[in-house]
Amino acid sequence: MKLGDGVEQAIHSVTLLAALPAEGVLSAAALAEFYGVSTSYLLKHLQALSGAGIVHAVSGPSGGYRLAKTPEKITLLDIVLAVEGPEPAFRCKEIRRNGPKPLAKRYFKAPCQVNAAMLRAEQAYRQALRAVTVAQLIAEVKSDDDGSIARRSCAFFDQNMRQPGSKP
Amino acid sequence: MKLGDGVEQAIHSVTLLAALPAEGVLSAAALAEFYGVSTSYLLKHLQALSGAGIVHAVSGPSGGYRLAKTPEKITLLDIVLAVEGPEPAFRCKEIRRNGPKPLAKRYFKAPCQVNAAMLRAEQAYRQALRAVTVAQLIAEVKSDDDGSIARRSCAFFDQNMRQPGSKP
Repeated sequence: MKLGDGVEQAIHSVTLLAALPAEGVLSAAALAEFYGVSTSYLLKHLQALSGAGIVHAVSGPSGGYRLAKTPEKITLLDIVLAVEGPEPAFRCKEIRRNGPKPLAKRYFKAPCQVNAAMLRAEQAYRQALRAVTVAQLIAEVKSDDDGSIARRSCAFFDQNMRQPGSKP
Repeated sequence: MKLGDGVEQAIHSVTLLAALPAEGVLSAAALAEFYGVSTSYLLKHLQALSGAGIVHAVSGPSGGYRLAKTPEKITLLDIVLAVEGPEPAFRCKEIRRNGPKPLAKRYFKAPCQVNAAMLRAEQAYRQALRAVTVAQLIAEVKSDDDGSIARRSCAFFDQNMRQPGSKP
């Protein structure tokens, strides 16, 4: 079982966007530069986050991304499902129905016990991800920060932040 | 996030092997026939289960597989880790260290908060899988069985079971 690299990139991008001043946006290229990742790959995940209503994409030459809601309202589960899709990790192929002399259909009305147990575990996973908001992650980072982490982000914003609403 | 099809195949194979009479074994080909799956693919997973001490492989012309321990002592987590490997689903690439003007190393002594939160969720998943034994799954199937499921397995054993220890 493996989550794609996009999950890490998406979570970090959301935490950085949460620190943007009001009306500011960052381009996909700027976010990719900040995390040293491929712009085209990150763009795909930003589009997924946009589709899920987590970030807002502002189009145009001074466009970019900003959060579509407050960090208190974005959970890790929201981001993981946006990037990885809603399907469960365990995908039952109902192999219990295969093989010689299969049982009659009435024996398969209840879900397979294997599938049910695997999905219960996945619910526990999702519940744990749902319990963590981006606001909590940011608070954890801040509690370890002597100011250097915030200063680095601010310096990066000074160089890269766009303000789509402002007059040139 | 996706688990391979091998997880379903391995869990079902273990539940079938749990029903074998003492000293009996089933070949990989017989197990594959019972579940309508590829023998070569299933063989890979049976070898993983053997490597993890969940099943015992008896070699030779009348060889095959049987459980290496009682179903009460095999959990879903044992099987999932045997087939999928022990690595966590979330594999932190430490992208927080990338980008322009990186922070000094001392800021990365503590694990990344994103990684820590993702791993906590994975612990919840593993804990839920650890809580389910193969014996419990079998008891659930039995409670729904009017006898037909057991009869089908027995008929299959009559045709396919090998007894490596018996004289010809």
